[in-house]
Amino acid sequence: MIMKVREQKPLPYHREQSASASARQVSVRPVVRQDEPDSPAGTRSSTFDHYFARKIMGALGNPKIRFRLWDNTELGQDDDSSAPLIWFRDRGALFKVMRNSEVRFGDLYSDGRIEIEGDLPGLLERVYQGIQTRGGQKPVRRWLDRVSRRIRRNTLSRSAENIHHHYDIGNDFYRLWLDAEYMQYTCAYYPDSAMSLEKAQVAKLHHVCRKLQLQPGDTVVEAGCGWGGLARFMAEQYGVKVRAYNISRKQVAYATERAQQSGLSGRVEYVLDDYRNISGQYDVFVSVGMLEHVGVEQYAELGQVIYKCLKNPGRGLIHSIGRNRPRPLNRWIEQRIFPGAYPPTLREAAGIFEPNGLSVLDVENLRLHYALTLRHWLQRYEDHQNQIRAMHDDRFVRAWRLYLAGSQAAFSVGELQLFQWVFTQSGNNAIPWSRSHQYPGQNTPGVTD
Amino acid sequence: MIMKVREQKPLPYHREQSASASARQVSVRPVVRQDEPDSPAGTRSSTFDHYFARKIMGALGNPKIRFRLWDNTELGQDDDSSAPLIWFRDRGALFKVMRNSEVRFGDLYSDGRIEIEGDLPGLLERVYQGIQTRGGQKPVRRWLDRVSRRIRRNTLSRSAENIHHHYDIGNDFYRLWLDAEYMQYTCAYYPDSAMSLEKAQVAKLHHVCRKLQLQPGDTVVEAGCGWGGLARFMAEQYGVKVRAYNISRKQVAYATERAQQSGLSGRVEYVLDDYRNISGQYDVFVSVGMLEHVGVEQYAELGQVIYKCLKNPGRGLIHSIGRNRPRPLNRWIEQRIFPGAYPPTLREAAGIFEPNGLSVLDVENLRLHYALTLRHWLQRYEDHQNQIRAMHDDRFVRAWRLYLAGSQAAFSVGELQLFQWVFTQSGNNAIPWSRSHQYPGQNTPGVTD
Repeated sequence: MIMKVREQKPLPYHREQSASASARQVSVRPVVRQDEPDSPAGTRSSTFDHYFARKIMGALGNPKIRFRLWDNTELGQDDDSSAPLIWFRDRGALFKVMRNSEVRFGDLYSDGRIEIEGDLPGLLERVYQGIQTRGGQKPVRRWLDRVSRRIRRNTLSRSAENIHHHYDIGNDFYRLWLDAEYMQYTCAYYPDSAMSLEKAQVAKLHHVCRKLQLQPGDTVVEAGCGWGGLARFMAEQYGVKVRAYNISRKQVAYATERAQQSGLSGRVEYVLDDYRNISGQYDVFVSVGMLEHVGVEQYAELGQVIYKCLKNPGRGLIHSIGRNRPRPLNRWIEQRIFPGAYPPTLREAAGIFEPNGLSVLDVENLRLHYALTLRHWLQRYEDHQNQIRAMHDDRFVRAWRLYLAGSQAAFSVGELQLFQWVFTQSGNNAIPWSRSHQYPGQNTPGVTD
Repeated sequence: MIMKVREQKPLPYHREQSASASARQVSVRPVVRQDEPDSPAGTRSSTFDHYFARKIMGALGNPKIRFRLWDNTELGQDDDSSAPLIWFRDRGALFKVMRNSEVRFGDLYSDGRIEIEGDLPGLLERVYQGIQTRGGQKPVRRWLDRVSRRIRRNTLSRSAENIHHHYDIGNDFYRLWLDAEYMQYTCAYYPDSAMSLEKAQVAKLHHVCRKLQLQPGDTVVEAGCGWGGLARFMAEQYGVKVRAYNISRKQVAYATERAQQSGLSGRVEYVLDDYRNISGQYDVFVSVGMLEHVGVEQYAELGQVIYKCLKNPGRGLIHSIGRNRPRPLNRWIEQRIFPGAYPPTLREAAGIFEPNGLSVLDVENLRLHYALTLRHWLQRYEDHQNQIRAMHDDRFVRAWRLYLAGSQAAFSVGELQLFQWVFTQSGNNAIPWSRSHQYPGQNTPGVTD
């Protein structure tokens, strides 16, 4: 996303000045739009402004996008006047992006001081791809990120604050754009890319249950249960008993009510508590979309919690956003949308399993499924603009649009991944011979014991 | 395996003396076998010998096995006289195991100074499980292992020596116990556990090719090709062109001849060279059973080699023995059978992908398949004792029996894992929507682009 600028090494001045290729790439085209009066003299963009705009464009890897300045001057590559466009509505917006692009861009867009013309996720994809060609994060920045993560360790109380910030916005808000039945605020699974969101979320729930090989009578503990859809689905469809933990008050209230309505009170229990306080022992551990909020520093502890709460032999599944390379979440999303969130790499996530006698059986990357899920969410979000505006102010509406579009773009271009890990105790031989049971429609070879 | 003793903390003397539970567990039963004369006085085992034998048993976690000493005295738990038995044929054997069990046990067994009665893999499983209950490796030992690995870095010339040591023993030898057609000296794949080794190796070859979604005309580069079976299979069955690298002279000669006989000379090329010297660009990278010989210190370099030799978009698969926790290969196997070998954890293997812009799509753990493969190999190995004895001396025959049985036990109890990683360039969207194509017999949803 465009907020990555500060992580990249900007071209030094003399190189940008002398490099004819770079100069050719971004041209300044004063364009006067017919529907607006000419800008007053004091606000006209100067050569200085154009220089800084080109500098930002360069830091983004000169993607195929256009900039429009407050006086309707346009900068862009080639003559592609159809490329999506970022419109800086005032000089301050340009300079703020220059200084701290990652957070400021999101804030300025939310405030309406930056507008986007054209396909929003498409523009953000181009920006991501541009940045990727510029290379990775600097070692010093990486170190600073690690230190700051250590300082902001997700303690019990901080986790509660973080989760309240995001998930207690209001169930009615989420209901407008998530799937109606199971309120899944995690990646869906599309065996067929033409599937509806509703069907793909049910397919995801089945995919998770099949990976766990649920049997009637199994006991399941869930860490971070959202609005309770997976727990309810497991009890209804697979005849298991589920105890589900969550620290979002509104979600637990909603989940409990829905389970009561479905007559599942005896088979599904929602507990308003942190995963670190899980008690009892279960056949199955499952966690879908919580790991992002745990923080790398707590992975060994999470692994201990899992090890302790699993009967032996037991089995587990973790579903989480991840990365190919270690890098913090986009700072704007981390500060404004998801405080305390961090998507781990496979290497980092191994810190859950390796120290705790857990054996990873299966890892699946469902990145494209999340890009598609987000496309559906964003579409529904836009379709319900009127209702959302009645609930929240314009700043909120714009911020969430950017967050959804930016996330879609991040999965599309491979900035983010979606991993599902299946695991069991080391040495458990009661594991399936193959994964064919995950793909029904064929005979499943026997399960060993 | 029993050679792990030195890694474990032995119980201090006073605890062993005072702990009644421990004293109860291992009892000394002087047994005079009818088929042997009573030992002469000078070789009779003493209380001192029994103390050390109990100490070794304790260091192994007091597994359900028996020890027999040179004078037929037996030590064991309970009164389970049917438990498998380790027979120390002389006092020196007992004391050598005491001093450096991991390497000495294998050598003494090879020399016939230690005998095993009962099921060899079964005994080794009990020993592994006993050791597992005693806990992991000490930090100092872990550090020493890391340092020694760094010193013994697998340079080009050392890799060549290491590989020559193992793979150039003689094709005739391996042919006696591997599958006849493809000479696969790597884990087979048993969709049905009752399958023959031959069928399971063909199933493995298909499983690898399906994971790679080979299309006719694709170009494939293989790193470490054994006797060339996979390359030949790919060309024959999937219509691709393969260039396969290997530094074992005998294997390359055999592979080349087989390909010529099959009329595949134009479509399969075997190159006697190190994977670090791979040239050209290919649609697919594949490596089955080489990573064990690469060494963790070279993983980033291997990842670079892969990144450079893959067209974009390309795809790859690595198949390798692994671990749940970092730990060097059993020292006896590392010194006598597989010099320079090391099975990585998922965290360590991530060092191939993370620094090199590669995205892991799929990881599968086939541990039990390797235990079963080894059971088949060991059975054939025993069935061909006469031929093998005609080729090699008794020491070799016994060493290889122990190696095969110990490996079977290690996979059975979860000391070793077998991982297959599928990967592609980060951001490649031409990846399958699901893994159902790996499980034919059902409709495969479309592949995105």
